[in-house]
Amino acid sequence: MLKNSHGKPGQHRERHTMKSEHIPKATIGRLAVYIQVLENLLRDGTEVISSEKLASACSVNSSQIRKDLAYFGEFGVRGVGYYVQELITSIKHSLGIDRVWNCALIGVGNLGTALLRHHDFEQRGFVIKAAFDCDPDKIGKELEGMEIVCPTHLKNQAKERGIELGIITTPPDRAQRAANHLVDAGIKGIVNYAPARINVPPHIPVEYVDFFDHLYSLAFQVTLGNFEG
Amino acid sequence: MLKNSHGKPGQHRERHTMKSEHIPKATIGRLAVYIQVLENLLRDGTEVISSEKLASACSVNSSQIRKDLAYFGEFGVRGVGYYVQELITSIKHSLGIDRVWNCALIGVGNLGTALLRHHDFEQRGFVIKAAFDCDPDKIGKELEGMEIVCPTHLKNQAKERGIELGIITTPPDRAQRAANHLVDAGIKGIVNYAPARINVPPHIPVEYVDFFDHLYSLAFQVTLGNFEG
Repeated sequence: MLKNSHGKPGQHRERHTMKSEHIPKATIGRLAVYIQVLENLLRDGTEVISSEKLASACSVNSSQIRKDLAYFGEFGVRGVGYYVQELITSIKHSLGIDRVWNCALIGVGNLGTALLRHHDFEQRGFVIKAAFDCDPDKIGKELEGMEIVCPTHLKNQAKERGIELGIITTPPDRAQRAANHLVDAGIKGIVNYAPARINVPPHIPVEYVDFFDHLYSLAFQVTLGNFEG
Repeated sequence: MLKNSHGKPGQHRERHTMKSEHIPKATIGRLAVYIQVLENLLRDGTEVISSEKLASACSVNSSQIRKDLAYFGEFGVRGVGYYVQELITSIKHSLGIDRVWNCALIGVGNLGTALLRHHDFEQRGFVIKAAFDCDPDKIGKELEGMEIVCPTHLKNQAKERGIELGIITTPPDRAQRAANHLVDAGIKGIVNYAPARINVPPHIPVEYVDFFDHLYSLAFQVTLGNFEG
């Protein structure tokens, strides 16, 4: 599915031969950042960007970004830079994210409600198809046109609605139970917003969201007072 | 304030001489990740970790992690690895985050409420000292023992309560107004959870939180099916 980077004669080539079958997790993590930065650039009207400027906007060095992007073919144009839209399209296509992912959300508290009301989800390709909560006071109520359902129905609904990803927004002590429901329903991956580790089978990737990432980073910058734009 | 890495004779040294005055933003971003991973390791009972394992847990390569940590002195012990607690303490001390940061939160909607109720804030050194919202129905109400106040009082309260950081959790169309209040109050840095760009003077760092980082990353992993632990 993925194309390797093939240098033309006389051109600089990466020393490593990229394996199309295996992309390191670190690269995958950075690609998420690259796509967001690129989408913001596009929104601000930037059509072409140099690898140096793109690297700086993404807070990596430019050799890293060239190496990461080389997994997906040759995007850069010598002396010009990257075409922003083309780069977004190519990365998304290569990674299979130019498609819709149906999601289930478990835990309709404040955070869950905030995510359900966040209007960018559909636009970004993530559609929350079902919302679950074990609180009897919440079950049966409607939110954003969706009925809140008891997690015991997750398995049936996941099958019916083609749900592939799970989003956990429960309190920490209910995160594992939510994860168990998701695993039992055959979900393929989980984003866990609850501040708790969860155990799932090794073939199911879990992304942990930490609200303190950005606060730490900000505190560093304020303390050091020497951050780069 | 920061110590450089001084190699002993015969030891491997980093080629670059680290400048204590300037730590790249990319390094700062990674340090936030390192600290979290280290704190999770500590919580799970890990006292010592090799740079390779730490690098893998942080999704960077081990030469990168050694280079980043070299800004803060010599932490690694040859043939042993890093002492987790010592490393956390040293990084936090060097960066001035072994202290409390008083924060103001603007926008007491679902997300703002979720953050106000998140019990880890104080434990992590970020204390939300005041909550603001321009909704007349919310002003004067209490949440987590805090009165919700009109943002026009932000300037006074920031001074009174020693508030240094601002957290924006407004809808996107109110983010700039919130930022203006924070800047006017002399805040030193902002974390913006609203999906909108804000303009602030260049000396004030802004961290943007994007809820799709993790969903993208998860979708990549599920699509490629070849992620590393």
